[in-house]
This record gives sequence, C-alpha cells and structure tokens, in this order.
Amino acid sequence: MTRRGEFELIASLFAPLSRMASGALGLTDDVALIDVAPDCELVATIDTVIAGVHFRVDDPPDLVARKALRVNLSDLAAKGARPLGVLQAITLSEATDDSYLERYALGLGEDLRHFGIPLLGGDTTAHRPATVPGRGGPFTITIAALGEVPRGQAILRRGARPGDLVCVSGTIGDAALGLLALEGRLPACTHAHYDMLVRRYRLPEPRLALGQSLRGLATACVDISDGLCADIGHICEASGVRAELKWHALPVSAAAQRRLADDPSLRQFILGGGDDYELAFTLPSSHRARVQELAMRHDMPVAVIGRVRESSDSEKNGVTVLGDDGEPMPVEKSGFTHV
Amino acid sequence: MTRRGEFELIASLFAPLSRMASGALGLTDDVALIDVAPDCELVATIDTVIAGVHFRVDDPPDLVARKALRVNLSDLAAKGARPLGVLQAITLSEATDDSYLERYALGLGEDLRHFGIPLLGGDTTAHRPATVPGRGGPFTITIAALGEVPRGQAILRRGARPGDLVCVSGTIGDAALGLLALEGRLPACTHAHYDMLVRRYRLPEPRLALGQSLRGLATACVDISDGLCADIGHICEASGVRAELKWHALPVSAAAQRRLADDPSLRQFILGGGDDYELAFTLPSSHRARVQELAMRHDMPVAVIGRVRESSDSEKNGVTVLGDDGEPMPVEKSGFTHV
Repeated sequence: MTRRGEFELIASLFAPLSRMASGALGLTDDVALIDVAPDCELVATIDTVIAGVHFRVDDPPDLVARKALRVNLSDLAAKGARPLGVLQAITLSEATDDSYLERYALGLGEDLRHFGIPLLGGDTTAHRPATVPGRGGPFTITIAALGEVPRGQAILRRGARPGDLVCVSGTIGDAALGLLALEGRLPACTHAHYDMLVRRYRLPEPRLALGQSLRGLATACVDISDGLCADIGHICEASGVRAELKWHALPVSAAAQRRLADDPSLRQFILGGGDDYELAFTLPSSHRARVQELAMRHDMPVAVIGRVRESSDSEKNGVTVLGDDGEPMPVEKSGFTHV
Repeated sequence: MTRRGEFELIASLFAPLSRMASGALGLTDDVALIDVAPDCELVATIDTVIAGVHFRVDDPPDLVARKALRVNLSDLAAKGARPLGVLQAITLSEATDDSYLERYALGLGEDLRHFGIPLLGGDTTAHRPATVPGRGGPFTITIAALGEVPRGQAILRRGARPGDLVCVSGTIGDAALGLLALEGRLPACTHAHYDMLVRRYRLPEPRLALGQSLRGLATACVDISDGLCADIGHICEASGVRAELKWHALPVSAAAQRRLADDPSLRQFILGGGDDYELAFTLPSSHRARVQELAMRHDMPVAVIGRVRESSDSEKNGVTVLGDDGEPMPVEKSGFTHV
C-alpha cells in the first residue's frame, strides 16, 4: 500500500479544493476565517459517516465523498440556509491508500464546485495498523458544514401547528430500496430501476433551493435521513403535535411502485427506510396553493401527504399512517439510530 | 455492557451542556444557530483524537473529553480568537459504555463551563462490534470549534519577518516527557514531577487570553501541537523565512530540567516533542519590552527564544537550534504527523 504523509496529502489532494476561499488560507494555517453576512445567523451542523456502517466498503470512493458532503448540506437545506463551506476530518484505514484517496478527493472536488462552496479546513488522521489486536478501524469521514440564514428565518423543527399540511419533496423510499438492491435482497428488478434506486442511495440530492424557498412559508422542516415516519416524528415531538399521513398520498417512484406491487411488505421501507434526504415540512393550510408553485419552481414533485393534529395523551406526538382502508398501518421500522 | 440509545445519550448526557445557548436548540434540531458579532470574522477549526493514537486507552474519560476540547480551543487561541462554542462528533467503541460516557460528559461539561462556551450540536455514531473480522474500531472524538475575531485581526502563520523575535509561552517539552512517563520510559522521577508532567500531557491549557492579547502585536502565531521546531517551522514555511533558536533560551520546567540533567538525550523531546499547546509567536523587535508585560498580565512565562532570519536557498525556511557551544544541534524528531 502506498500512502502519502499527512502534509503531502493535504497539499496535493485537499488544498486545491480550498482555492476559491481566501479565508481557507490554503489549508496551511490552524483555522479558517469565514465571513457571515451581517444580517445573517451562522448555521452549523456536523455528521460522521463510517465505512461498513453508513456506507458500503465497496461504494465508489468518489460517491462516498459526495454523499458525506451531501448529507451535511441536506441539514442546512432543511433549515433554509445557504451553505458557506465545510470542514472535513477524515480518519484513514489500511484500505484507504493513495488511489482510494485520489478518487475520494476527485468526487469531493466535483461536488464542492457543483454546490459552489470551498473546503475550508480539516484534519487528517489514521487508524493504527490492524495487525495488533484491538487496533485498526474503518475509514471515517466527519464533515462540519457551515451556512448562513437571514436572522430569525431558520426553519426549525418546533413550529408545526395543528391544521398544518404535511408535505414532502421528491419520492420516498428509493434509497432504502437501493440499499436492499445493493445487498442482493431486492428480487426481480430491471437494470434501469436498479441503477436509479442505487443512485438514490449513493448520491442524495440536498434540496438547498427548495429549503431557501420555504423560509417564511413552512412552519417546520426536517430532511429525511432516519426515515419518513421517524423524521416527521421529530417535528411532532419538537412541536408537541402529532401527524396523520395517508398512504395513498405518499410520493413513490415508478421503480418503487413496481417493487411494491410484487412484494407489499416492502411498504415498510417506504415508511421507515432512511437516506432519502428529501425535505418533509409543515405548511399552514392557507398556503395550499403554494405547494404546486414550489413544485413548478424547483422542477420536482412536492406532495401534501397529511395533516398536523393536536396531540392527545394517548397518542404522544406520534405519526399515524392511514392505509387505503382508512385504518392505521403498522410502522415497524421507526428509523435508524446510529448507536 | 450497557449503552443507551443515540437519542437517550444526547438527551441525558449532552443536551444539558447546550443549555446556555438558545441557538443550540437543545440539541433537538439538525443544526445550531450562532451569532457572529458584525465587526468580527468567524474562525473555525476541526480536530480528531483517536483512542490509542492521540490519547491512551487508559486515560481517564473526563480528561480525554477535556483534552479533545482544549486542543481545538488552542487553535483558536493561536489566532487571537474568542471561542463561541463547539460541535462534537463521537464514534463509540465497544469499550465506551454508559459509565465511560458519563465520566466523559462530566469532564466535557466541566470544561465548557470553565471556558464559558456551549456544546452547539453533534453527532453520535458507533463502530460495528469487533467480533466480525475487519469490524470494530477505537473511540474517536472530532470537535469543530467556532470562534470570532475582529475582522482582519486574526494572527496568521504567514506574517513573520526577518528580524522579528521568536517567543514562546509557558514551558516546553513537559507533555512529551509526561507521555514518556506514562509509558514507563522516564526513569527516576519524583511523584510531584511525575504528576506535573503527566498532567501537562493530559490536560493542556489553551492560551486564549494570551492569544487575544497578541492581536495587533504578533506577526505570526501557532500553537505547539506537533513539536516546538516543527510548529515554528510551519510559521517559517508560511512566511518564507527561517528561524534561529537558542537552546539556552528555551523555557524548561524544573521537572524537565532535572530529567535532562540525568539524561541529555531527552533534549530531543524538548525540541521535537508535541502536545504542549503553548503559543509560539513572532514579534517585531521594537516590541521587546512587551514580552515582560505579557508575562506579567497573563501570569505565565513568556520567553524570547530566538530570531527570524532571512531564508537562503540552502536553508529552506527551516529552524536551527544553536547549542551552548554556538553550534547547530541535531533535531531528530521533526514533529508528529498523524498519518
């Protein structure tokens, strides 16, 4: 295995990704300097992804980098923020050799350009060799994303009110089915559907423009990382309300519909599967006409999937999904937790 | 082993550490909102520490937390910044059970109160069990620290000029000797000296107040994490200069002096050992009188240890240490790199 030293890695692979920001100081200083617009608040988030836990060891390195970046940008998107840049701390395993890291950095650079943001700084560390018992460890990526939002306009989880519409962007469940497909557990799938579902798992699309459009409009918003019901549940808990969704209203892709027709038990992956990184948000019902407008402007499906309800003691801020028969459906998988 | 789930861990151990900041949103949202003063720039840094690499597996968990925090605050200190808060991403190993994490959180909370800053947000993940080959991994802590500095006043690495004085705070080499002591490789040490050296390794003191005093005064500054010569070398490289230090001028604690008297080969740990987290900075020679003033105000040693020199091709922005005989000393260990 060949691997460059820490400083050489930074200089050759990562410093070029900082070029567009003078405050990144060419990644040669201890810190980055960032300007936040005077009428804005800084928005900050941090997320770790681990080989073998959050991504597959055989996922292409460029897509690993892009997904690690995108799951963080998705958190900014859900708050209506505009990204300013990211800090990256990576811990190398024995498998992340020069060739892996070159492809990783290529993907990261491509996406940073795509989103128009710089790499502001970072830290590169390595696990000890796994030859000693209790040593070694998987390739791990932690990204801290920084953004800005006009002061007081961040869309939090806690603003949902009874009567609000529950809305969601894009289609739901594709990423979970894509992971199933990669694991060889999704039978009878066309190549085109397979590719689409896997791509949805490997390369989520942070809904940054939609999120910014929701400022002053949505009363609460989350991105769907843990699963549709789990994440809308986070809104309910923070807002002290419950939500009633309708199964038939959930936006499901043609690829997923086809799989559901073959195997109705896959519905659990629509309700509980994570990793879609679409936005789920609540909207005063007086704004119903804006839903179509948002869909048109951002050229993506935006669906009304249910209503926010008052919470009673027996229901405890939960999420109910009513099936086609009007009866609550079981939701077996209530979202990932990463511990 | 008992371990709480992700949400319970956050609610019970970490959310209380966010209380002083409304923008942390009780750690229940996707992001934190932070106000940066309008006349200030945001200063951001990220650092990872890994059990078995950057700290010892048997280090007390409360001190592990405090050191992980402090090495990040030290980066802010070196730039003259005031800390605003931190984001924390931890990846648990099988050894980090509830009892470990409680002690960890206690230490983190204690230090956050000490420095008057909140935990702004975070992410909690876990390694897969080590029972499967290629799985498992060490407890890993990544902290991103955010601070602010009056616009244009951050002290960078690149401002050192020929003729400037090279200065350093505190005493140098104690942390490296402390690590040697913990490894049982430091012979003949009194209990008091042992405790002092180990404490310097386990609990560095970020020089935040000194760093802020250096704004508008120092031409360049770094914190000593990689080693005295390596870190002053970073200033030289960024500034296109070289530095000439004098061995007899280096501030060495009584405990370290005693060890050096017994074993002169330990001098390499003074010149090359890392982890002291003192500040090394350059100062126009017209400010020499300010050195004493800084030491008085901050109640700590501040020493002039050498001079910045013009760089010639043959010397290449390096650091020379002149021994008591006026001859350059060998510097064997030119600093840690973490890959």
